[in-house]
Amino acid sequence: MRMYDIIKKKRDGFELTKEELEFFAKGAAEGFIPDYQLSALLMAIYFKGMSKRETADLTLAMAQSGDTVDLSDLGAVTADKHSTGGVGDKTTLIVAPIVASCGVSVAKMSGRGLGHTGGTVDKLESIPGYKTTLDREEFFDVVKKTGMSVIGQSGNLAPADKKLYALRDVTATVESIPLIASSIMSKKLAAGAECIVLDVKIGSGAFMKTDEQARALAREMIDIGSAAGRRTAAVLSNMDTPLGAAVGNSLEVIEAIETLKGGGPDDLKELCLTLAANMLVLAGKGDYEACFNLAQEILASGKAYETFKACVSAQGGNPDYIENTDLFEKAQFSCEVLAQTDGYISAMDAERIGTAACLLGAGRKTKEDSIDFAAGLEIKAKTGTKICKGETLAILYANDERLFDAAKTEYAAAIAIGNEPVEIQAVVIGSMR
Amino acid sequence: MRMYDIIKKKRDGFELTKEELEFFAKGAAEGFIPDYQLSALLMAIYFKGMSKRETADLTLAMAQSGDTVDLSDLGAVTADKHSTGGVGDKTTLIVAPIVASCGVSVAKMSGRGLGHTGGTVDKLESIPGYKTTLDREEFFDVVKKTGMSVIGQSGNLAPADKKLYALRDVTATVESIPLIASSIMSKKLAAGAECIVLDVKIGSGAFMKTDEQARALAREMIDIGSAAGRRTAAVLSNMDTPLGAAVGNSLEVIEAIETLKGGGPDDLKELCLTLAANMLVLAGKGDYEACFNLAQEILASGKAYETFKACVSAQGGNPDYIENTDLFEKAQFSCEVLAQTDGYISAMDAERIGTAACLLGAGRKTKEDSIDFAAGLEIKAKTGTKICKGETLAILYANDERLFDAAKTEYAAAIAIGNEPVEIQAVVIGSMR
Repeated sequence: MRMYDIIKKKRDGFELTKEELEFFAKGAAEGFIPDYQLSALLMAIYFKGMSKRETADLTLAMAQSGDTVDLSDLGAVTADKHSTGGVGDKTTLIVAPIVASCGVSVAKMSGRGLGHTGGTVDKLESIPGYKTTLDREEFFDVVKKTGMSVIGQSGNLAPADKKLYALRDVTATVESIPLIASSIMSKKLAAGAECIVLDVKIGSGAFMKTDEQARALAREMIDIGSAAGRRTAAVLSNMDTPLGAAVGNSLEVIEAIETLKGGGPDDLKELCLTLAANMLVLAGKGDYEACFNLAQEILASGKAYETFKACVSAQGGNPDYIENTDLFEKAQFSCEVLAQTDGYISAMDAERIGTAACLLGAGRKTKEDSIDFAAGLEIKAKTGTKICKGETLAILYANDERLFDAAKTEYAAAIAIGNEPVEIQAVVIGSMR
Repeated sequence: MRMYDIIKKKRDGFELTKEELEFFAKGAAEGFIPDYQLSALLMAIYFKGMSKRETADLTLAMAQSGDTVDLSDLGAVTADKHSTGGVGDKTTLIVAPIVASCGVSVAKMSGRGLGHTGGTVDKLESIPGYKTTLDREEFFDVVKKTGMSVIGQSGNLAPADKKLYALRDVTATVESIPLIASSIMSKKLAAGAECIVLDVKIGSGAFMKTDEQARALAREMIDIGSAAGRRTAAVLSNMDTPLGAAVGNSLEVIEAIETLKGGGPDDLKELCLTLAANMLVLAGKGDYEACFNLAQEILASGKAYETFKACVSAQGGNPDYIENTDLFEKAQFSCEVLAQTDGYISAMDAERIGTAACLLGAGRKTKEDSIDFAAGLEIKAKTGTKICKGETLAILYANDERLFDAAKTEYAAAIAIGNEPVEIQAVVIGSMR
């Protein structure tokens, strides 16, 4: 088999065989296909697409290109969730304990943040002592003991995807639905859960800017999951505004804990219950309404909170911080963004708000950057809110006062203010099976 | 300027600026753009094409990426020719001396053969003593003394093209008219001649299989040449059958010398006179008819033969071989390919005939292979010829008898024999300005 022939075949619009796609994935993972041929094929796929069959075959081949996790030893139904990335998305910290509290194991590997979006692993590391690197035995022990565990991705999870993703990132071949879908799903398949719920974000802060794109991506991922024998569903959710009010690592953990304690913002709570309910449906816990009610009860009862605290403890984290969030180290400086005019907030650019948090030290511009866990921002007025000139739109937090100017400018630019009242969009847009 | 943005821009169908194309060519030549980004852009260009302006800008940038030859010191009008590659094409050995004998300098850099097509430099090296590597001063001296010189390409001629061509070859991005045109023309522009005649081959042994493709390529190259201020023309010629009868290095040199002495096959002679006439027209020697007649006279007078012999001598070659071609070392073995049936030769696959010669040792499969100068074949019956069973179709020459079987099979497979008489196509299909 020659990579040249595979490139030419795709370039000319023909379907690649399972063997050809396996050769491609293996060559990417093991390095025997040079980068310039990989990127040429990626660009040909960008233009010519892939059939459902090709996409499923490539995904499986990428999933099998490195370590795969066999969760069947856990002796329980396992469920996983994945978000396509947004701003202020701390749902895993709430959804995982709800689902685990219902008897469905959540043995989850999460990513780190890059650019304007945050990552669950970074957020958890803001809890003193929390270990995001566990070996297989420790990982399984935590899940068996508490029903859940969230760790960082193994270094050798879907190495073909790691290689191809890095190449796509620098060759303008990211924006391809089959390539995005296979990238996400290869890691989910390798991570081993039987039930997979995908949170596909739509809007200014999301990778998918339109409903149509998001549905196409969701369809593609569900079809891959089904082809691989996994129960898969997708929730489409709004990312025109950040989720909840907190953006930044410890700030988001605190908001998640407040939600687990019965408080928290409505939009965050609604999305978490929806995701949890979908996971429970896939896990066979009943129909959607029953599962939604169950999730709601479990959250209200404090059981999910207890589960989260137990998991944090089991992973070395200090449970005192969960009980009393005042213990989290605060940023040295804060600064308010004030409204310059009267009116209604008509739109927010969630991506720019994510960038503002990043400018404060909460995120990474490149993989090598370090993160300030205490930095970030708190949104005081979201889309639809009536505001008066001089009112606080947001509070920014940083450990370096010099960061405020740029972040303030970015935040202000992210907010549009109009004269007319605005209809507020629901956070949950729809769901797909 | 970021290569990522350039790739994305082309991917999305926008026109690249002169600066962007210069950055691309410079990055390819100097190595500061990684191969995977170069190949991604090449694939995007494959799909989205380039405007005339982009193609001309890229060509100039590639031409200027390395050494350029300034022929103005020669104090004469300079003309160059280029063939898009065929089988049995020894025209340079005849055309250059004709044109040089008319007072137009031919300071030419030629390539080596690869695959089924031969290269002029290899052919010339079959003349004992002939040096294909001269420094600038020696090169100019030979031209000043004899009116012509043919040497191998400088190592640093259009290095951007060298890099991109090597990448295209392994990423299935060769078949793009703007990329083919810019590749050829970048070397022609760097080589410095004022007048450029392109011999664009069409047919089974050529890269361009159809008239339409060939005309599009010719148009593109003429436009590039004109944009760069060079007088440029193209001749479209038939490559459904090999040119002349000889295929193989010393065999082709012998055939060229026979032609210079007044003999030689008609098709070869006609194409050579046509190419020479076009070069003379561009060089201002009169209208086409006058130039064709002039070329014919010069060939018939023996002046072109004398010029060739003088050039060979000046480049260290032994002129005795030119005077007496029997001196050329012959292959140890020969073998005839016989007709298996009565009929008319209805078609020849020139590419397969080139491959047969290659199998006998006359060509290279990879750049590193060595060449057997005496190996090759002599075609005894071309398209249109009436043949009887048992008649000789070709004679194969090799220094290793074991090579005959595969070559014979290849040659036989290249010949189609039918019952009806066949119209013979002219070698010159047309010309374009």
